[in-house]
Amino acid sequence: MCGTDDCVVKCSSVPCANSENDPKDTSTIINLDHGDQTMYESYWRKKGNKCDITFNGDDSLSYFANVGNAIVDDHYTIVGTGSSQLMQAALYALSPTDQLEPISVVSATPFYSAYPEVTDFVRSGLHKWAGDARTFEKSKAYIEFITSPNNPDGVIREPVVNGDQGKLIYDLAYYWPQYTAITIPANHDVMLFTNSKCTGHAGSRIGWALVKDKEVVRKMIKFMEISTIGVSKEAQLRAAKILEVISDSCLDPNMENFFEYSQSLMTNRWKRLRQVSANELFVLQTYPLQYCLFTKDFCESHLAVEEEDCEKLLKEHKIHTRSGGRFGSDSRSVRINGDTSYFAGAEKKDDKVHVPDLGSLTSVYD
Amino acid sequence: MCGTDDCVVKCSSVPCANSENDPKDTSTIINLDHGDQTMYESYWRKKGNKCDITFNGDDSLSYFANVGNAIVDDHYTIVGTGSSQLMQAALYALSPTDQLEPISVVSATPFYSAYPEVTDFVRSGLHKWAGDARTFEKSKAYIEFITSPNNPDGVIREPVVNGDQGKLIYDLAYYWPQYTAITIPANHDVMLFTNSKCTGHAGSRIGWALVKDKEVVRKMIKFMEISTIGVSKEAQLRAAKILEVISDSCLDPNMENFFEYSQSLMTNRWKRLRQVSANELFVLQTYPLQYCLFTKDFCESHLAVEEEDCEKLLKEHKIHTRSGGRFGSDSRSVRINGDTSYFAGAEKKDDKVHVPDLGSLTSVYD
Repeated sequence: MCGTDDCVVKCSSVPCANSENDPKDTSTIINLDHGDQTMYESYWRKKGNKCDITFNGDDSLSYFANVGNAIVDDHYTIVGTGSSQLMQAALYALSPTDQLEPISVVSATPFYSAYPEVTDFVRSGLHKWAGDARTFEKSKAYIEFITSPNNPDGVIREPVVNGDQGKLIYDLAYYWPQYTAITIPANHDVMLFTNSKCTGHAGSRIGWALVKDKEVVRKMIKFMEISTIGVSKEAQLRAAKILEVISDSCLDPNMENFFEYSQSLMTNRWKRLRQVSANELFVLQTYPLQYCLFTKDFCESHLAVEEEDCEKLLKEHKIHTRSGGRFGSDSRSVRINGDTSYFAGAEKKDDKVHVPDLGSLTSVYD
Repeated sequence: MCGTDDCVVKCSSVPCANSENDPKDTSTIINLDHGDQTMYESYWRKKGNKCDITFNGDDSLSYFANVGNAIVDDHYTIVGTGSSQLMQAALYALSPTDQLEPISVVSATPFYSAYPEVTDFVRSGLHKWAGDARTFEKSKAYIEFITSPNNPDGVIREPVVNGDQGKLIYDLAYYWPQYTAITIPANHDVMLFTNSKCTGHAGSRIGWALVKDKEVVRKMIKFMEISTIGVSKEAQLRAAKILEVISDSCLDPNMENFFEYSQSLMTNRWKRLRQVSANELFVLQTYPLQYCLFTKDFCESHLAVEEEDCEKLLKEHKIHTRSGGRFGSDSRSVRINGDTSYFAGAEKKDDKVHVPDLGSLTSVYD
């Protein structure tokens, strides 16, 4: 019924920046606390009209399995308003309904800083945050978030509790070739992905879950229906188109491969960061080289950064980061956001970090 | 940083239909249980390129106060993924956090059938569904949903409990000139609106709240951040553009006024429904004529329909409706969805309702 080309809304595939703060007042602060997914902007600018789409109601988000980062054949796909909503949908679906006590939700430290509040913000009687998976008593029932590569530290992870009554949610937001080697196609009961980290289109709020069990799928869909009566169609269709273009870019030798582009961007940023870290304010984490099935080459993880100094010390140097305490870890480490290039020009002189005017820093998203 | 016109996504302003069921197998069933907001489709088709928009990150949903259905001056606007999410955000913000027991949430029967499950689906410790506002003990603390005009029965409503410890959420989804007379600009602490009912673009999942108290606003925004890290920008910008076009249509004498168009559509459908009701299977509710400040004329409510027969009897006649039981009312009445024209051709013969082939009925939305 839709799809006529009258009355069209045009939508650039360039990810949108937020503009909450005053863009004029950023000359001396480096905000590495949270980022905005604008780092792939120049890639999308170059795509020309490749992302043109006329909205039809019967399109769907179903292709794009070429990266080889997950098994999709025996899984259902559920689209969500970002992976945040899918985390809640998965918790809802995996929590037992016949128990008086809420089920414990755990993740090994350092964990994604949103898990505790996503689990507890409405004080659900279905599930409750129980902290570090490493100290959880394995004889009890639990749900474990396994973030791999991990946010904030980029480490490839396996389940930690390994109890008999565990249900596992794999958060694979960063399991893409620009961030880590794709060593094996992931094949788990519940896997979460998000456009934010894959394509950079965080403002679209599109995530997807690959789920094996039909009953879990049914409950997750029920959650989406009650919570937001589904997911914005504009956002879904735009995401589908953008994923299609990325998929094409991997197959068509005349197109610039998106993952090669974004991987080289990340490599370059880490290189510059290592140069800055030579001033001894930072100690950067190192990762083993691993063979990537997608790039057919050995590569290193390019996700997050660890420092021996704390959030407070860095703040004194006008560098905003997120303390390890937010991730259930200690305050000797901080997470810096990997999608910003603003750091590159900083210099340490006279025990201070001197920062050139780097334009607006206006993001609110993780 | 956004807004270049390369790599565009075009989006028709024609609301999208769902296509879950088999469109070929609908020759003998009339589904009035739930609807899809396709009834304004021909209006949007006629708009041509009036709804063209190039997505810029700094656009916002702030204008459109010309209908006079609400006071906006001393209110903040919060955008949500449909009004469903805003209901939860409002419950979250208005629930006390220093109490051991969850606060009671009530609404007078017949109430919107989603309130109980929106309140209770994750077994929140903040709030719990407590049923009919009319039987609630007024000395206790509570949150009351006041749906006006009411879904399902179209009645203009006032608070019912009127206790000292009440917090009120006004659900004004249907307070638009096509559904009811705008007798006064609504002016309450928390008011909810949705594009679904106003413009018909249910698939966009855009709603907005007008809220007076800054602390309530802060908590509602916190809810949106944890729940879905904000609202799809594509959907917000498209909704803003569509509301702008509607606003223009009210001001520009050369444009077809959207509310006059949609009001005449509703009037016509009710007329046809009254013709069918003459076969005595239905008894249609009547509403008083009221003076509308927007149309500057007397008009009648055109929202829902009541029947003396129950859901089961109508199902025997292959007419799907939603029983009054779902609204905390009794099963002698049913709600039929007001946005469908499929009913118009039905005829009662030999104690059966005979229905012509009316094409696909495929909606999932309320």
